[in-house]
Amino acid sequence: MTTPRRPAIGVFDSGFGGLTVLKALLELIPHSDYLYFGDTARLPYGSKSAETVARYAIEATRYLEQHGAQLLVVACNTATALALDKIEARSGVPVVGVIEPGAESASKESKNRKVVVIGTEATVSSHAYRRALEQRGIQAKEKACPLLVPLVEEGWIDHNVTEQIARIYLNEAFADGFENGDTLVLGCTHYPLIRRVLRKVAPDHVAIVDSAQSTAQVVKDMLGKSLSEATEDERRKMPRLKFFATDSVEKFRTLGARFLGREIEDVHHVDLKE
Amino acid sequence: MTTPRRPAIGVFDSGFGGLTVLKALLELIPHSDYLYFGDTARLPYGSKSAETVARYAIEATRYLEQHGAQLLVVACNTATALALDKIEARSGVPVVGVIEPGAESASKESKNRKVVVIGTEATVSSHAYRRALEQRGIQAKEKACPLLVPLVEEGWIDHNVTEQIARIYLNEAFADGFENGDTLVLGCTHYPLIRRVLRKVAPDHVAIVDSAQSTAQVVKDMLGKSLSEATEDERRKMPRLKFFATDSVEKFRTLGARFLGREIEDVHHVDLKE
Repeated sequence: MTTPRRPAIGVFDSGFGGLTVLKALLELIPHSDYLYFGDTARLPYGSKSAETVARYAIEATRYLEQHGAQLLVVACNTATALALDKIEARSGVPVVGVIEPGAESASKESKNRKVVVIGTEATVSSHAYRRALEQRGIQAKEKACPLLVPLVEEGWIDHNVTEQIARIYLNEAFADGFENGDTLVLGCTHYPLIRRVLRKVAPDHVAIVDSAQSTAQVVKDMLGKSLSEATEDERRKMPRLKFFATDSVEKFRTLGARFLGREIEDVHHVDLKE
Repeated sequence: MTTPRRPAIGVFDSGFGGLTVLKALLELIPHSDYLYFGDTARLPYGSKSAETVARYAIEATRYLEQHGAQLLVVACNTATALALDKIEARSGVPVVGVIEPGAESASKESKNRKVVVIGTEATVSSHAYRRALEQRGIQAKEKACPLLVPLVEEGWIDHNVTEQIARIYLNEAFADGFENGDTLVLGCTHYPLIRRVLRKVAPDHVAIVDSAQSTAQVVKDMLGKSLSEATEDERRKMPRLKFFATDSVEKFRTLGARFLGREIEDVHHVDLKE
């Protein structure tokens, strides 16, 4: 198979959080085309079982592949934790999740090999981060923070209540032998939006790792050759962005812009049952 | 059609909230059989569009009808607000929603005809409560409170943070000409679980209306004749409860017990795509 010079990257999430990964991709690889799938009719995945999440994720990534994605980014910690192997098994193109890149970044950052990971209930229950970190010789403490996603979606980004709730969660996380954990992994793609609050309430000595950045770097490395072969003309072109959402297009446009940090235009409604 | 003496009542919700309605039904009509459907794989409905909610609700209520429900209770404010007419149109049995009974209770309660309704984003956007209340000569103010459902599901029922968030929402609700609203309708079946907190932060003069109670009364009135015909033997029988959930059975059992206030045993997993 010859890789076209301007690759189409498929980015999948249960809803809006994956747009923080798309944002990092656009900064690092601006000369690609992107297809983004938000399974907004069935979000959130974070409170659901492994079987349900796997079924939904496979349907969504298959859709992206059928619509031209030549590389798939599973930009959702829950779907990566619960279904990455199943998505890979059913996919004809390379698949990148967010957990391995996040764990690799944490491993580079942590000096004392003690890392705290915060995420959804489903991500934490899967222990996917703990496994990925232990393989790198790191002790991991995982903590579910189910209220943070709704707070971000309510737009209470800088709210005093968000700070209180984050403080409760982080106090519980940096405890029981992890008082001196030196790295905090944002194990949910919603959390970069409240990074300022998390920075404020996390212990001062803690480094914060956001897997969006490291995932984008992994994708760039994978595409390295085809990107360097792109002609000057191709590089000058702006990225083409196309969005698919299973719930309201209007809502995707409005809420999505907050995550992506730019206007969202080309959104199509998809009904996966059709 | 002859109504069997011991009717099977189908109760439907997106997840767990409808169990507060089932609880009220069990108190008022203990001599029935109940089929409960929680569409837990696709919850919450409260942030989704009318089209999506209607499609999901029709699938779920059809399932209950196919499994023997002779009367359907749509125990979800969002589904009632967005899809009651569509469910009724496709159903072969009587259908009861929670909004008309809730509005009727509020109408009996309110002296100055100014009522505040709190609910999910979707329920509030539909203005179903406002219409139902205005038909009764009542001025209504509707206020979306998207964080209350996640707080209940996190189990922060008596938490100081829940109280702060409830206070913020109710301060915004009892404002702009509704400072003297004299009735508060709990327009979401999750909210009875934080009734104590809401009572504490609502203005003292305000009466709280919970549509679970009034919905159960409407169902009892509809069944009146068949219930009075039941034999002594039939009346002595305990209710039979059967539950269907689209996500994890184990999670339904655990979280559901908190809403129903009793153990949940007979739960079956349902995949609506099969």
